[in-house]
Amino acid sequence: MDLAEITDPERPYTRRSFTALFLEGRALVARRFVEAGLSVRLDKAGNLIGRIEGRDPSLGVIAIGSHSDTVPSGGRFDGIAGVATGLEIVRALRDAGTRLDHTLEVIDFLAEEPSEYGLSCVGSRGMTGSLDGRMLDLVEPGGEPLRDALGRVGGDPDRLGEAKRSDVRAFLELHIEQGIVLESQSLDIGVVSSIVGIRRIEIVFDGEADHAGTTPLHLRHDALVAAAQTVGLVRRVAEELDREGSDYFVATVGILTVEPSASNIVPGRCRLVIDARTTAPALTTRFVETVDRESKAAAARLRVRRSAFTTLSDGPPVACDPDLQTALRRAAEDLGLKQTDLPSGAGHDAAFMSRICRSAMVFVPCRAGKSHAPEEWADRDAVAAGAAVILQAVQALDRSLQEAGPALGGEMP
Amino acid sequence: MDLAEITDPERPYTRRSFTALFLEGRALVARRFVEAGLSVRLDKAGNLIGRIEGRDPSLGVIAIGSHSDTVPSGGRFDGIAGVATGLEIVRALRDAGTRLDHTLEVIDFLAEEPSEYGLSCVGSRGMTGSLDGRMLDLVEPGGEPLRDALGRVGGDPDRLGEAKRSDVRAFLELHIEQGIVLESQSLDIGVVSSIVGIRRIEIVFDGEADHAGTTPLHLRHDALVAAAQTVGLVRRVAEELDREGSDYFVATVGILTVEPSASNIVPGRCRLVIDARTTAPALTTRFVETVDRESKAAAARLRVRRSAFTTLSDGPPVACDPDLQTALRRAAEDLGLKQTDLPSGAGHDAAFMSRICRSAMVFVPCRAGKSHAPEEWADRDAVAAGAAVILQAVQALDRSLQEAGPALGGEMP
Repeated sequence: MDLAEITDPERPYTRRSFTALFLEGRALVARRFVEAGLSVRLDKAGNLIGRIEGRDPSLGVIAIGSHSDTVPSGGRFDGIAGVATGLEIVRALRDAGTRLDHTLEVIDFLAEEPSEYGLSCVGSRGMTGSLDGRMLDLVEPGGEPLRDALGRVGGDPDRLGEAKRSDVRAFLELHIEQGIVLESQSLDIGVVSSIVGIRRIEIVFDGEADHAGTTPLHLRHDALVAAAQTVGLVRRVAEELDREGSDYFVATVGILTVEPSASNIVPGRCRLVIDARTTAPALTTRFVETVDRESKAAAARLRVRRSAFTTLSDGPPVACDPDLQTALRRAAEDLGLKQTDLPSGAGHDAAFMSRICRSAMVFVPCRAGKSHAPEEWADRDAVAAGAAVILQAVQALDRSLQEAGPALGGEMP
Repeated sequence: MDLAEITDPERPYTRRSFTALFLEGRALVARRFVEAGLSVRLDKAGNLIGRIEGRDPSLGVIAIGSHSDTVPSGGRFDGIAGVATGLEIVRALRDAGTRLDHTLEVIDFLAEEPSEYGLSCVGSRGMTGSLDGRMLDLVEPGGEPLRDALGRVGGDPDRLGEAKRSDVRAFLELHIEQGIVLESQSLDIGVVSSIVGIRRIEIVFDGEADHAGTTPLHLRHDALVAAAQTVGLVRRVAEELDREGSDYFVATVGILTVEPSASNIVPGRCRLVIDARTTAPALTTRFVETVDRESKAAAARLRVRRSAFTTLSDGPPVACDPDLQTALRRAAEDLGLKQTDLPSGAGHDAAFMSRICRSAMVFVPCRAGKSHAPEEWADRDAVAAGAAVILQAVQALDRSLQEAGPALGGEMP
């Protein structure tokens, strides 16, 4: 709640990455880290890291974290609850006089939310060797490249290699569910089984911008009519794939623009962006094939050119580590909490962390599933229950990881 | 072509009403008027009027005109050809030593194209007592009210009543067709039978802006899916009405906006504007009833609120004056030109002039029906043929109107 006070007053709760407000928020997080007994540093990827050495530093690191940046007019929990969880676990261990064998880190990843530079998960990409030069060259509307922004907030784009970690053994992230499964079934804890893969596709229809009064219907090349058919198509195909079985599949047209956008001109050009998410990549493949074929046919019928059908991004789904999931399930059971396994429909830093270490997530219920909005809310007890699960799992992992070999989560087949 | 030189160099041919370029263009028109022997004045509605007294001033005025403003990146003929026609007719009469019994006026109406103030036909509205205080209060994005803009270009918003005319006996306007009927049938002249009525309707769908990854399809309130169905519906119903018979009917969704317009957020709000045009108001009534009923039902199915279904404007169709049409048809026949009657799908100053006098229009072919675009083109001979038809009709009307009583065109049943 103290972090929530640091917001653009015009549109609470806004603390966009790379802004002065973001750095003010981070200064608060760093102070709390220090007060809890953590040593604090920024890595070259701009991640804020609090660290307390374990009894046996050779065992490597167990990390807990999430992010402190927000979307515009976002909430007080998305990301923040995960950082606060790490901090609270450190305090609880200190208060109990417990020192772990593993080194423990609490990480506030840089810029998890999509930023003005058009990229999400900047910090966790950097920590896992997934932030490349093309991404650093992305430019925000004001003209600043991400490369410069990263340097401005304490990272070093020229020494990103130093941010890549090989010493992390396990990563755990608490996050609000951003959905209504837990609330609607009165459950306390969701153990995340997998994190969806996201494919984004841009379609552009080029028609002709004719006079809306003088151009007969049968001679029009109306780009919007073609785009509108594709919006309906995306919904219909997504519903069919979702109904097929237990795999998660959703698809959305969130962006649709019309040119020239005048009431008396037939739309000459329409651009739309499809966001398709699944835990089973084969479903996305079938979805894209169907949308490709049918949107092409619709364009032809309407005498419109489908001038682009472009994959903007394609992140594979990630399976959470089975051993970490087991540890989380056992902890929830020991604590008498009602739990379920569920996939995550949103991307998270944990998906990138799975590239370098075992990773898993705990979801806690949030009111009405609302997220990315000022009314986003999770009860104090709900977050505390999730934090207790992670604390107990960390203590179990501090022992069990000493026996287990290294294992990775990773992309799903 | 001299007028076309006066353009925003970045986007030819642009001479937007109320701008310095527009006034520069008008100065050129005024010089040509004077050179042709016309006396020149601006009326209180900002119309530029060239006038040559008739032998019997008590007979009133025959007027010819159109407009010299353009849409952004418009053409060299829309409006301009009609003003140049009036000027050329004055020259031809002078060269032939002919003086009419009626006074002849050539009118460059102010701001026929929709301007930044959101209104079209400002000058012809003013000349016909159709420019009210609510319209004068319209404000362009920079904050200037139309009232001030009108004063700035030589009108007087406080003395608009003086612009209203009762002495005009007939108004004739030449315009490029902005369609492909004449060109595709190799015709020289279109005698306009009626000018469509235009109804504009705004529909707003309010859903919920949920997370595109975590919100199951069956729990969404996706405003864009509802809006897209309405786009398809508008096209389908328009095609049905158009196929019914000889009446003209077209409908277009030219504006559709999505909020918040992010690839990862389910659209929470969509606004669209429908433009429906017809020569038979009963068709628009049936169109609106069907779109109202079915868009409401679609919204309900999709759990979206249809929060607005608003008539933004509703101009009735106008029948051109039968006697003036006859005069135009006879002139075209005498000149050996191939002609047809056809409705105008676009609005024109003549539609407003019909409120105060007999009015009619001549269309001439334009290349590929293109208009409101830099490639807009009409051959010199095509415009000259239209001007010759109007010249001959004016001479006939100069005699026949002395016998006929006053008659108005007007709204269609």
